[in-house]
Amino acid sequence: MAKIRTPPIYTTPADAAMAFYQAFEAKDLDAMMATWAEDEEIVCVHPGGTRLVGYDAVRLGWEQLFAGDTRLAFRLEQIVVIETVGLAMQSVVEHITLGQDSSPRGTAVCTNVFLRTPYGWRMVMHHASPTPATPSTTPSGPLH
Amino acid sequence: MAKIRTPPIYTTPADAAMAFYQAFEAKDLDAMMATWAEDEEIVCVHPGGTRLVGYDAVRLGWEQLFAGDTRLAFRLEQIVVIETVGLAMQSVVEHITLGQDSSPRGTAVCTNVFLRTPYGWRMVMHHASPTPATPSTTPSGPLH
Repeated sequence: MAKIRTPPIYTTPADAAMAFYQAFEAKDLDAMMATWAEDEEIVCVHPGGTRLVGYDAVRLGWEQLFAGDTRLAFRLEQIVVIETVGLAMQSVVEHITLGQDSSPRGTAVCTNVFLRTPYGWRMVMHHASPTPATPSTTPSGPLH
Repeated sequence: MAKIRTPPIYTTPADAAMAFYQAFEAKDLDAMMATWAEDEEIVCVHPGGTRLVGYDAVRLGWEQLFAGDTRLAFRLEQIVVIETVGLAMQSVVEHITLGQDSSPRGTAVCTNVFLRTPYGWRMVMHHASPTPATPSTTPSGPLH
């Protein structure tokens, strides 16, 4: 019989963020999607990928990502948080390693946004993009 | 005599967003910085660049960006908005052209976050990253 899990209630944005990265490292699709709001307005951008909008598209994106062999581990640094009663933003620098042997995979800058819902704090935005590992004050983007 | 401008008060996140893109297109540094909260927690990520944190670093980033000859124009599409009383998130796909001749420069996905301050709505996060122009449900990022 399939195990039925009651979705957890995250009482703070930080709890939801921790659950998000734990699910990511564990490649646990149900646990991952339990951190997201069940909404058509949620947005997920994986590094270099197109923008995924809505619960079904976001779920499919994680399903495809977790289908690969790679298992990643994250070390979060330089966390900036802006929190209000209903919505919270977290900006982090993700140092990503391959879980098995800790070889460096790269660095991403990531914006996570959490919404307070009747079911606790849930993710509504995950926007990750590759970034140079060494901080610099010079923006060197090809677009802007 | 230098012209002294009273910073405008944006009464909605959408007003602040519009002023942000107008200042960006006009390369008007003072108008750009008037859309940002004067805070040490503000975050700006230009496409492919490192993360800039704090008012001074964010201002310096725009100053350097505006110092170049390039003048950009933006067409915003697929706008997703999540708004609460104190904080608002806007996710947009930016179609960027060179202002002079409308040649396509590329497409970026962008997360903007606005905070309601005593001086109206102000930007606290701008995270832009290059994205494939054609939507796809397959995340193809090199990192995640």
